[in-house]
Amino acid sequence: MSAPDHAAPPSTLIDVARQAGVSPSTVSRILNGTAKVSDDKRQAVLAAIEQMNFAPNQMAQALKKGRSMTIGIVVQDIASPFFDETLRGVDDGLKGTGYASVIVSGHWDAQEEAQRIALLVGRKVDGIILLSGRIGEDAILKFAAQRPIVATGRGLNGHNAHGFRLDHDNGAYMAVRHLIELGHRRIAFITGPADNDDVAERMIGYTRALREAGIEVDPALVAESDLHEAGGMAAVDALFAAGGQFSAIFAANDLSAYGARLGLYRRGIRVPEDMSLVGFDDLPGSAYTTPPLTTVRQPLYEMGRTVTGALLALINGTPVASVLPPLELVVRETTRQRLV
Amino acid sequence: MSAPDHAAPPSTLIDVARQAGVSPSTVSRILNGTAKVSDDKRQAVLAAIEQMNFAPNQMAQALKKGRSMTIGIVVQDIASPFFDETLRGVDDGLKGTGYASVIVSGHWDAQEEAQRIALLVGRKVDGIILLSGRIGEDAILKFAAQRPIVATGRGLNGHNAHGFRLDHDNGAYMAVRHLIELGHRRIAFITGPADNDDVAERMIGYTRALREAGIEVDPALVAESDLHEAGGMAAVDALFAAGGQFSAIFAANDLSAYGARLGLYRRGIRVPEDMSLVGFDDLPGSAYTTPPLTTVRQPLYEMGRTVTGALLALINGTPVASVLPPLELVVRETTRQRLV
Repeated sequence: MSAPDHAAPPSTLIDVARQAGVSPSTVSRILNGTAKVSDDKRQAVLAAIEQMNFAPNQMAQALKKGRSMTIGIVVQDIASPFFDETLRGVDDGLKGTGYASVIVSGHWDAQEEAQRIALLVGRKVDGIILLSGRIGEDAILKFAAQRPIVATGRGLNGHNAHGFRLDHDNGAYMAVRHLIELGHRRIAFITGPADNDDVAERMIGYTRALREAGIEVDPALVAESDLHEAGGMAAVDALFAAGGQFSAIFAANDLSAYGARLGLYRRGIRVPEDMSLVGFDDLPGSAYTTPPLTTVRQPLYEMGRTVTGALLALINGTPVASVLPPLELVVRETTRQRLV
Repeated sequence: MSAPDHAAPPSTLIDVARQAGVSPSTVSRILNGTAKVSDDKRQAVLAAIEQMNFAPNQMAQALKKGRSMTIGIVVQDIASPFFDETLRGVDDGLKGTGYASVIVSGHWDAQEEAQRIALLVGRKVDGIILLSGRIGEDAILKFAAQRPIVATGRGLNGHNAHGFRLDHDNGAYMAVRHLIELGHRRIAFITGPADNDDVAERMIGYTRALREAGIEVDPALVAESDLHEAGGMAAVDALFAAGGQFSAIFAANDLSAYGARLGLYRRGIRVPEDMSLVGFDDLPGSAYTTPPLTTVRQPLYEMGRTVTGALLALINGTPVASVLPPLELVVRETTRQRLV
């Protein structure tokens, strides 16, 4: 956002007008130089602008272009550290641009997402960032006819619309290859809900890495979680209940890896001495677990910056730079050579 | 928000109008029954309402009262788990009310907070929830003349305004009492930035509990952190560098406790066998650290629900119920009787 340069969204035109005791259209006419108003009024408006610490040039410019200098962001879960990192990237991407952002939540519900996008369009945002979600591509393109939209987790491409996807298959492949290179062959997988596309891709990467090394996938070594800590802990219990032998666990996300870690601690199983553990996401907290978690880093922050740049490009009619950094394996302290 | 009942904010009036090919005021007149419009137009509007799955009665009602059915939320750090929990409470508090929320960030900057509140007022939200922040009480009350405002971290009271504060002094007192009761007398405190009021209160509670037990406060046992993991880890280093002896650490928040935990692990100091550790906040992750963290629980989720209820009461002109649950000590596995 725009603390450093004190750029103000033009909604505050109304406040300037109120402060100066004139109509918003008078403020607007003064700002774009077309006003025939009394000196008193002009002085009152300029005083209000100064007092309220606004940037009239930027306001006037935005106004001229019919812009609100606000962008809307649709997240799915406002309380998730996963969205936090991307939002931090969006936030930094907007710094110094004069744009303010408003955030709404779609709660992983396609219908609610559509309603929230309609709300943002109705509130006259200049563009929309859609982070994950379940709304269909057709519906997005329909909204994109009204406002530029960029989306994550989708290969969306159309007029006024751009999507970004990461290669989750390859990310999972790297994690499992790492474990195989450390000598592990019995590698459990803590998966997520069946309808999660990203997780389904990670399952493909897990399977691919195992098969490539001549290791058959053992269904007894796959347990489902809710992608939260509680689910990861329960998945460890399920894996042991299934009686399978394993020396390493690949968890489909970091939160479930945290839960798995506690589940192992409860059983007196040491990480990494007795069991290796790899997560997926690289949340900020993963560098500070005990011990710090080996994981696949999703460039969430960079994705936030990239989608913001893409949206501003769509708004300004300039070419969209669409290169995301790749997923990468971050080796910390929860993985170790398997003892023979 | 409002997924279950498909209630729609009246901003979508514009979308209904666009869909039906009529002006928004025509839609409005049809909804409040004052319209003299052709049957064709009426049919088109009703079809659009049905197609877009909106709740016309609620819309009409809101419209009649001049409401936008949107509330604005000002947070300070969109990527903080601290705000996440409160936002989750707000989110749940709005469920089924027909209200949508939009979130903006003030970035702990009083001026930016004021700009964001002005943005929300300009966007015609029906009320504002201000979570923490640095804007002064006078400025809040000025905005409250335009829209009802509820705020956390403040004892704010005025027309159209209500504040909620927790007793951080007492929370810290409970944490340190717990350690003293376990036989600890050399108790270090990892504090936060000097300008943080909540942390200053926690320092008072720490001091009070020590003095009450006849223990003098030793400045060598107090180290400052940034209230994040990295700062907690550095604070542990600073405490050891200062050469003080201690058997327990009270960290001013959970994130710095996580960092302290890793700092101790790096030195081969076991928790709780060699060192007891208490945090403050009870973030969702604190039940899943290894071992799970003893901490002072801030009712962040409940606070989110309470402030939401208070704001809706202000909007509706009904009495504000202002009772927050108290802070409470949650004893988990990082604290233990001091070995003599």
